[in-house]
Amino acid sequence: MEPKLFFRLFLLIITACFIVFFTSTSFSHAPSSTAKLFDCTKSSSSPLCASRNFLFNKKTRPIAQNVPKTKPKNHDHVSDTPNHPLDPLTVMELNKVRSILSSHALFASRAPHTLNSVVLEEPDKNLVRQWDKGDQLPPRKASVIARVGGDSHLLTVDLSTNLVDLVDSPVRKSGYPIVTTEEMDSAASAPFSNADFNRTILSRGINLTDVVCIPMSSGWFGNKEDNKRVTKIQCFSSQGTPNFYMRPIEGLTLLFDLYTKQILEITDTGQSIPIPGLINTDYRYSNFPNRDKTRPLNPISIEQPHGPSFVIEDNHIVKWANWEFHLKPDPRAGLIISRVRVHDPDTEETREVMYKGFVSELFIPYMDPSEAWYFKTYMDAGEYGLGLQTMPLEPLNDCPRNAVYMDGIFAAFDGTPFVRENMICVFESYAGDIAWRHTEYPVPGTPLLREVRPKVTLVVRMVASVGNYDYIIDYEFQTDGLMRAKVGLSGILMVKGTSYVNKNQVKKDKEGNEEELYGNILSENVIGVIHDHYVTFYLDLDVDGPDNSFLKVNLKRQETAPGESPRKSYMKASPIHTCPTRSDPKMVQSSTRPKIDAVDLSPNIPRLMAKEPSSRGGVLGHNVPHRKLEGILKKDGQIKLSLYDPSEYHVINSGKTTRVGNPTGYKIVPRATAASLLDHDDPPQKRGAFTNNQIWVTPYNKSEQWAGGLFTYQSHGDDTLAVWSDRDRDIENKDIVVWYTLGFHHIPCQEDFPIMPTVSSSFDLKPANFFERNPILKAAPNFEYDLPVCGAKSVST
Amino acid sequence: MEPKLFFRLFLLIITACFIVFFTSTSFSHAPSSTAKLFDCTKSSSSPLCASRNFLFNKKTRPIAQNVPKTKPKNHDHVSDTPNHPLDPLTVMELNKVRSILSSHALFASRAPHTLNSVVLEEPDKNLVRQWDKGDQLPPRKASVIARVGGDSHLLTVDLSTNLVDLVDSPVRKSGYPIVTTEEMDSAASAPFSNADFNRTILSRGINLTDVVCIPMSSGWFGNKEDNKRVTKIQCFSSQGTPNFYMRPIEGLTLLFDLYTKQILEITDTGQSIPIPGLINTDYRYSNFPNRDKTRPLNPISIEQPHGPSFVIEDNHIVKWANWEFHLKPDPRAGLIISRVRVHDPDTEETREVMYKGFVSELFIPYMDPSEAWYFKTYMDAGEYGLGLQTMPLEPLNDCPRNAVYMDGIFAAFDGTPFVRENMICVFESYAGDIAWRHTEYPVPGTPLLREVRPKVTLVVRMVASVGNYDYIIDYEFQTDGLMRAKVGLSGILMVKGTSYVNKNQVKKDKEGNEEELYGNILSENVIGVIHDHYVTFYLDLDVDGPDNSFLKVNLKRQETAPGESPRKSYMKASPIHTCPTRSDPKMVQSSTRPKIDAVDLSPNIPRLMAKEPSSRGGVLGHNVPHRKLEGILKKDGQIKLSLYDPSEYHVINSGKTTRVGNPTGYKIVPRATAASLLDHDDPPQKRGAFTNNQIWVTPYNKSEQWAGGLFTYQSHGDDTLAVWSDRDRDIENKDIVVWYTLGFHHIPCQEDFPIMPTVSSSFDLKPANFFERNPILKAAPNFEYDLPVCGAKSVST
Repeated sequence: MEPKLFFRLFLLIITACFIVFFTSTSFSHAPSSTAKLFDCTKSSSSPLCASRNFLFNKKTRPIAQNVPKTKPKNHDHVSDTPNHPLDPLTVMELNKVRSILSSHALFASRAPHTLNSVVLEEPDKNLVRQWDKGDQLPPRKASVIARVGGDSHLLTVDLSTNLVDLVDSPVRKSGYPIVTTEEMDSAASAPFSNADFNRTILSRGINLTDVVCIPMSSGWFGNKEDNKRVTKIQCFSSQGTPNFYMRPIEGLTLLFDLYTKQILEITDTGQSIPIPGLINTDYRYSNFPNRDKTRPLNPISIEQPHGPSFVIEDNHIVKWANWEFHLKPDPRAGLIISRVRVHDPDTEETREVMYKGFVSELFIPYMDPSEAWYFKTYMDAGEYGLGLQTMPLEPLNDCPRNAVYMDGIFAAFDGTPFVRENMICVFESYAGDIAWRHTEYPVPGTPLLREVRPKVTLVVRMVASVGNYDYIIDYEFQTDGLMRAKVGLSGILMVKGTSYVNKNQVKKDKEGNEEELYGNILSENVIGVIHDHYVTFYLDLDVDGPDNSFLKVNLKRQETAPGESPRKSYMKASPIHTCPTRSDPKMVQSSTRPKIDAVDLSPNIPRLMAKEPSSRGGVLGHNVPHRKLEGILKKDGQIKLSLYDPSEYHVINSGKTTRVGNPTGYKIVPRATAASLLDHDDPPQKRGAFTNNQIWVTPYNKSEQWAGGLFTYQSHGDDTLAVWSDRDRDIENKDIVVWYTLGFHHIPCQEDFPIMPTVSSSFDLKPANFFERNPILKAAPNFEYDLPVCGAKSVST
Repeated sequence: MEPKLFFRLFLLIITACFIVFFTSTSFSHAPSSTAKLFDCTKSSSSPLCASRNFLFNKKTRPIAQNVPKTKPKNHDHVSDTPNHPLDPLTVMELNKVRSILSSHALFASRAPHTLNSVVLEEPDKNLVRQWDKGDQLPPRKASVIARVGGDSHLLTVDLSTNLVDLVDSPVRKSGYPIVTTEEMDSAASAPFSNADFNRTILSRGINLTDVVCIPMSSGWFGNKEDNKRVTKIQCFSSQGTPNFYMRPIEGLTLLFDLYTKQILEITDTGQSIPIPGLINTDYRYSNFPNRDKTRPLNPISIEQPHGPSFVIEDNHIVKWANWEFHLKPDPRAGLIISRVRVHDPDTEETREVMYKGFVSELFIPYMDPSEAWYFKTYMDAGEYGLGLQTMPLEPLNDCPRNAVYMDGIFAAFDGTPFVRENMICVFESYAGDIAWRHTEYPVPGTPLLREVRPKVTLVVRMVASVGNYDYIIDYEFQTDGLMRAKVGLSGILMVKGTSYVNKNQVKKDKEGNEEELYGNILSENVIGVIHDHYVTFYLDLDVDGPDNSFLKVNLKRQETAPGESPRKSYMKASPIHTCPTRSDPKMVQSSTRPKIDAVDLSPNIPRLMAKEPSSRGGVLGHNVPHRKLEGILKKDGQIKLSLYDPSEYHVINSGKTTRVGNPTGYKIVPRATAASLLDHDDPPQKRGAFTNNQIWVTPYNKSEQWAGGLFTYQSHGDDTLAVWSDRDRDIENKDIVVWYTLGFHHIPCQEDFPIMPTVSSSFDLKPANFFERNPILKAAPNFEYDLPVCGAKSVST
């Protein structure tokens, strides 16, 4: 969750310096390279290396030198130019933003200032939708979030006019922007300057050189944190292991002011708790001389003798099978997929499905209310930035051999651009699964029927290591029109020290109830603390264009009439009619406002009608006046899932129907998930209120993209999706956005120690009467003569 | 659901004849062969080909000749001998059973008789568990279900003593055994001898030669079906398409007596409904001259330059990575996995996980109560046999190139053995996923950490084409100890004819409510009828041996005390204490008996304790007296899942703990599923009452294996898992069986026409404090030098 980023500062500055000035020199872009570290101290006389001091001062430190490898010329990104309205800001553009801002009055003061976010200000949706390859790009603009002194500012920089628009300056709502590497670095080193801290460390018998401290976002718990940008700091012993997370110095917490750089408070509740041992904590392959003693697995690989079937045009347009979309790295969301369109084999049209999809926010509440743990309620996208927390993916292991990689270009906290190499991979996956099949026993005169089509998918992957946890985010495309968003959790647990070495030591009260541990004992002196993960996706579906409606189809038992049938009952699919009943009393939480799931849909209420038919529509697509369909949600929709009160959730274009009259649509198909059980009035749940429902539907609003609010850090929960959704806005035949939250309860067990096997879940966006028929009816089976001829490269190597 | 098996009869007899007599001749075992048809009419003078007349008489018909290909000698199965106590009956053994029974008094009568099931009578569990390779096999026995005249008989045939034990003869409980191919064949041809039938077909303008009729199990709906073994028959037009399922002759239903071979009743409610057209119904690749016009996919393959990592020893013992298990085909369950054990890298022990796992029953209720549809409430395992409904898997498409295949040896309805070739495949899958990973930004003096391990799994697959539907059943093993059972649904919908060609024609009543269609219009005159699929798995988990308990850990919101914490709440994991509350009032169905989820667990009640410690246990395993653990279910357990009242479900060995004192365990991890909404008193739901809960826990009872009862066909629901579970038997520290039901609601959409893209779901059995730590900590990453060197075989081919 929480970055430990002692040296991120240097990594970023130096990378940026390098990119600007040393693109033709020996810089590592090799996939297997480790971090690219270039020592700016040696080039500090260079004007641009000095530029890292432009917005603030940061003293340099010696860092380990890596030997950079030769970098292919076309991957240096210095000469990148935007090709599409949604392309991210280039190195040149980021430098220009920095240059424009450097002369702006806002940054004239001597107060510390940082650029917390510099990203493309995306053009209006209509402009983007109308743009075709070859057209001039709409004006390029940057959206900038800056801190100057104690204030946040939201700016737009026009790169054609050089004008700066102070959109919200200073920002007056609660919350702060993403913490910067500079801030994290200062927090990580601050304890060592504190005499009380050093004293308590020494009193525990630890060498200060073995201590690693990491900042942890503080959440927000009421007035005492108001008007101070703070972080909690906790520390670990790295003595003898790279896996210091397993060796917490329990109960020792510091509160640090990120602006004044002062330690405000030290609490120490864990003096009696030993630091867990280092045995079995290391997970490096190089650490196991005997390696795995079980039957070894033979090498296995996905091979494509003719190469991948996809192309990435103009750096960002991915075209594969029947799909095409725009793909770009993003510092906050990790990656953004836009303009998703699919080819219709019947009409030969390329039809719109989704304008934009990305991870909007995460919420990871730990389930321990005690002093050293209560605040651990992370919102990793808005607090740290999923894209900023990526590392280069490891070829052959993070992604298979046939993967293609994409770099991210981000701005450092001083505005200098840097390259995050290989942060996204794109590959075709074939697991041996079946796309469709049927076997029919022969009837006389007909041949045996056995028709089977293998399932090949396209995966777009990024991995964010937000401190201890690793989030593997996959967007998977199937040729049958299904899109799957999948989240894999791996990495290292956040554990709690305990004096217990065995469960049988746990104290019991007079009634025999065991002491609450808030988790399970995973190893001697180690408790894995229970926590949840919520990942909220922003899904601006535009099914055949933006004018869509959300159709909730309830599945209910219908009893038959007496004498009607030998059956007593059947399941009926009914569009909802009125406010649904709350089937589960537990679902009615103590929220301060009544929950609306859907507003009255009774036919007596006048409805938005008579929209102009969409201008789209092909041979088989039938444009019809927007029709009155039962079950359409009219206002901001909020939906909780239930196994015994199931529904289907369709986004339909009621202005366009299939040949037989069904509105064209895509449905959201939840799979395994979890729901937050926290009190809705609990401060963390107020901030994470966007997880109160699994599905939300809102009208499109360009400013509503981050479910926890644009300014998430220490936010009060006054600018979340839950608040926007209360605005009771029309969503029928509108440009609507669907928000889906994927949840996990994590009750740690010993198998999670010292590093966790990946746990995954997913949800699907699936065509439902979007195509006239199975769109892969004509797909080809595999033939032996197509497949590669392979040999072992070098058995004896 | 319902087999259309005109020629199964011949296939089986002839195959059997062939195997017995022509093993060295030109018989097709080539993977790409179609059905193996050998014309017994030409060999009918042979005494063994005549043997197909042993138990009944069936007139022969001309059939298409296939040219058999050379078959490898070692695959003829004629000389197979059993190597393991659980090995299925061999060809020789099946012949011996037939021989023993032929001289038994029971079959002396002239009444028609069939052998509906001949399978291994598995030895007692203790014998099997104690057996080691090299030991003598326990006595080999066959369990036989026979029909003689109108009676069913359950017999055991001892192959060493030749004695026949009449276990239950005649059987007096409700229900019948699996329908035979002979019965299905007679049903499929019966309508054509009926003048009324022929008249109504002709009156609809259809040629009788274009009509295909298929038997459909009738379910059970009260007294009128009592004491008659019947089937419904419905018919389709196969004119111009192999996909006759899309061309129903709607509303025409025949009731056929499988014993007397009489048509009892013809109902015809669909005279005004046209037969849907044939356009776009064909799905054969050979039918698309222009093939797929979208960007073609380049060939892709899973390659293993050194071959697969698993071995199959003695025909049935699969050993892969840390796993080993016994795998066998089964005519009813499809396949059975037994003696599943996993290697513990810490102790070097091979530890027991699951004694036996298989698909126990399916339940597929259609949601249309009208005359021609109400009875469609299939239970495919007990009515048709999943194994019997398999076809040879198609290499490269049903399973990837690196797959290994296993044949099934089953008995035909006259007891003759036949081979179902390539009915199971086993392969290693690598989709490009990640088993575990972590990236750590470097701190000064330490190298960058990036440790990633690819995820390779072992998949065991079978596919049953039960009439129109195809069930893809995967058992997937992960090296981290997780087992996944996955069900994929593909094949062809059962559709309903309608006079509507467009949704806008659907009639409305005065209130504006649309006529109930019980589904969606998928094409002109075609309605895809709503239905559910339930697949109930039998899981005899033996975690470190048979003495296990079931631990339900409830996750509940816990409010903090005033002043305790800045947090108001957290989620607490609590073993259940007393009868859980019914969180969802909808879950309380109108069953005639009160639901018990778990019995009182209050500490005042004396509990079963003081069992002897298990005799197992290694270096790190600690045997402890069976302890009093909170949350253990004591009596037959019945569990419903709920998103807002979540739990974890552990099977633990409370007599064995890990090093730090946790009971060793595996947990059942539900993923996406669905629950039946039918009235519990509805006849189909009474028969399918095993789907009333998602999880059931019962004490091991050798006779309780088939959730819908041993005699499923036309059963009344008086011998289901739901009935057994009401017996209130102890399940604490017992040999227990867990039953898990995976459900799907299927609301058809146009993309399902004319053949359905696969829909999948799954659940996991996952180690939870079973291992001391992550068991794949020492797994190796991929290295480039291990991977194959591949080339395109022949681009121009």
